[in-house]
Formats: sequence, structure tokens, C-alpha cells
Amino acid sequence: MLSKAQISLINSLKNKKFRKEHNLFIVEGIKSVQEFLDSTYLIQQLYMTEDASAKLGKIPQNIKSEQISSAEFAKITQLTNPQGVLALVKIPEENLQVLNESTHEHVIVLDNIQDPGNLGTIIRTAEWFGIHTIICSSDTVDAYNPKVVQATMGSLARVQIQYTEIDIFLQQYQGKKFGALLNGKNIYETDFGNSGLIILGNEGNGISESIQALLDEAVTIPRMGNAESLNVAVATTVFCSEIARQQLSKK
Amino acid sequence: MLSKAQISLINSLKNKKFRKEHNLFIVEGIKSVQEFLDSTYLIQQLYMTEDASAKLGKIPQNIKSEQISSAEFAKITQLTNPQGVLALVKIPEENLQVLNESTHEHVIVLDNIQDPGNLGTIIRTAEWFGIHTIICSSDTVDAYNPKVVQATMGSLARVQIQYTEIDIFLQQYQGKKFGALLNGKNIYETDFGNSGLIILGNEGNGISESIQALLDEAVTIPRMGNAESLNVAVATTVFCSEIARQQLSKK
Repeated sequence: MLSKAQISLINSLKNKKFRKEHNLFIVEGIKSVQEFLDSTYLIQQLYMTEDASAKLGKIPQNIKSEQISSAEFAKITQLTNPQGVLALVKIPEENLQVLNESTHEHVIVLDNIQDPGNLGTIIRTAEWFGIHTIICSSDTVDAYNPKVVQATMGSLARVQIQYTEIDIFLQQYQGKKFGALLNGKNIYETDFGNSGLIILGNEGNGISESIQALLDEAVTIPRMGNAESLNVAVATTVFCSEIARQQLSKK
Repeated sequence: MLSKAQISLINSLKNKKFRKEHNLFIVEGIKSVQEFLDSTYLIQQLYMTEDASAKLGKIPQNIKSEQISSAEFAKITQLTNPQGVLALVKIPEENLQVLNESTHEHVIVLDNIQDPGNLGTIIRTAEWFGIHTIICSSDTVDAYNPKVVQATMGSLARVQIQYTEIDIFLQQYQGKKFGALLNGKNIYETDFGNSGLIILGNEGNGISESIQALLDEAVTIPRMGNAESLNVAVATTVFCSEIARQQLSKK
């Protein structure tokens, strides 16, 4: 039986302020919760209906779980088609080591991305292409926003997300910094090497000027039609795909 | 001054049934409406506020336009942040010639895509990469759905969309048919030539079995991480990008 306090806590986590305060975020859905159970994330509490618990794999003994009715579940879910499983997951601590380790591979850097669906799609796509780390500017939408978590389809459980002041990070970074811009070198003629930062900018304004000044190379996806711009998750996809193609062709 | 009948007509166009009945769809926003004004689409009626009309280019004399108050505009807009311009645009007639002409270039074929945002992003991305035609199965979401129109960011004005029974179309098509599947040939080692169909399937189920049977080549985007799947608009992007890269490298 859910207490009013539990319901109120869970619903408050839609809001970034309360996610920060409680250091928790929500994961919903059988597949997504399963992926977080199988990850290094710490699950604080699991809520599930009887039907859903039958569909989940075995839940480790150290994880607190509570079976609730569908009527109770309706009070905490944020999905239109709820699946009867909701986990409260601990937001990982900042891990500045990530920034140092990131010099050995390709890393995506996001400058002020605002749309939760875009960030979620970027995380999911990055994981497909074997990218392990995404570094976000402090003003990028919160990756623990329920809409982002949902859009990652579980990939958030396996991609490291680090928020930081990216101008400082870029200044300290030793490797090559590629930025997605409209007037740069053809992406298909750019050698991305074995590591480097791929920087993508805000949906409306692109990469901010102060960050542009820190780039080594402006890279452009050639426009063959008349579309004015590409969605930022689509642009990220083109970079991930081209880097993957170059890596695979070297093997 | 908007009549009740006008308001009711415009609001009914959210619904596919009424779009079909009136043969009209809605385009909103200054940039998108401008792109439709500059296209071959027929504009039946334009509604705009005084502020917005100052931001639009010169409106051709043969287009009926009506200036309305912001309060009236609020009754017809479907956007959270309305821009004060709404056009009623004629749905183009079926044009079977499109299917014949499509043998000279790469054409995207969508099998039962359901998400309006995905279809909108696919149309916008296709246009960026110079693809002129998208052929949709009859059960694909309606391209004139306001959410699709919005997500195309004006590209719908320039990409031909044709709904048809794609199994019959594929049987009659003379060129090469590439399908996005999980167990096919590496996309980066696939020669897409100068023309062909690129077939992408439903968000949950992929390409339907009856359509799979009609493919010449199953093509796969190599998975380098653990993500279970790619969003269909992201997968379409990878195909468009790789085809563009191959075309450009031949020049």
C-alpha cells in the first residue's frame, strides 16, 4: 500500500529541483527497468503490479521492492500506457575521471541541447555506435528528466553522462575537437582518427560562439536538398555513423 | 472575424477523417507557411494576426487571406507557442507518375511507420540529403497530420509523399530493393548504386514479412554497443548519409 508521502515523492521527481534534492530519478517500463537492474546504477526502490512482476527477471535480494495494485500504480506512473514497473534510481555522483578517460575514444559533447526527446535519442544512438561517454554543458536538458530516460530506451543505463562547464573542459582537453557547423569541412572527407570530441550545438542556435573558438575543426554534413537545417539528433547520428564507418574500414 | 463554422472546420482537420473529407490540411508558423507559399501546393486560405502578417513575405494576390485578432487565432492554433499564421492547404492528388519516375534515383519506402514525429523527421532528413520521394504504405501515419507537418519544418513542401500498397509497388519496381534489417549485409560495404528503394519498417516490428520476401538485399547498420535497436528516423538517417557519401565520392 502506497503512502501519500511516497506518491508525492515519486510525482515530485518529474521536477529537476526535487530530483536534485532527493538524488533520485524515475525509470519506467519492464525493459528499461531490467536494463537498470543489470547496470551499475543503484536502485533505491522498485514498485510493480503483480502482472508486471511476473514479466521481470529475478530481482536481486538487496533491492527493496513493493507490489502494488494497478489502481495504486496509476497514481505514480507518468506514461500513457504504463507497464506496471517503476524504479527509483540513484543519480550517480559526478565522476570527473570520466573526463580524463575520455581521451582514448570518441566522445560526444552537447552544447545547450534543450529537447528531452533529442537528448534521449542521442544517448540511444551513441550507444548503438559504441560511444560510451556524453559530456553535456550545464545548461543542457537534464538526462534524468523522465522524457529523456524514456527516449533512451534503456541506453541511459550504459552510457556515461557527465555535466560540466564545457568551455573549461574543452580548454583542458588534449585531443582533437570537431564541431558540427554549417560552413566547415565535408564530414565524409574528415579523418576522425581514433579519438576526439564531437561537439554539437543547440537546436536553434548551433554551437555557441565561445565554444566555436575552441574547436580544431569545423565539420559539415553536406546539404544536397533545400532543407534549412537538420535535427540535432539526426546530425549526431551522421557523425556517429561516419566515425563507425571509418573505424570499421581500418579493421 | 472568424465564423463558428470556420473555427469548427479548422479544428476538425486534426482528424484524418475530416482532412480526407475536406481534402485540406493545416500548416502553421511563419517559416513553414512561407515554404508552402513558395511551393507547388495550393493554399486555400490563410489566417494571420497583424503582427505575423508583417513578418511574412508578400502574399500572392490569388491567395485568400484573412487578418484576425490574437484572441481569434488562439481558437484555431494547435501550437503551444503559436506564431499567428495558419494556412489551409490542399492535399495533393495521388500522382502515380511519381512511382514510375522514382526509378532514376534513391527513394525511401516506409512500411507502417506509426509515430508522427518519426515521419516528420524522416521527411526533413530525406530532403537535406537530396531525396525527393517517399513512398508510404497505406497504414503509415498520415503525412498531413499536424504533428508530422510541424516536425518536417517546411520540408513537406518539397518532398513528394505518395501512399500506396507497397507490396504491389515493390513487385512492379524494376530497380534494386534494399531493406533495413538486423541480420543483413554491412551498410558500409553495400553499393547503393545510382538508384534503388530503401525500405524501412515499423518502430516495433521492423519490415513486415510479406515485404521482406520482396527485397533484393537485407542491409544492416553495424551495432557496436549494446543498444537493442535504433529509432527508425535515426536508421533512415544512416541510410541517407551513407548513400550521400557514396554519391559524393563518385564525383
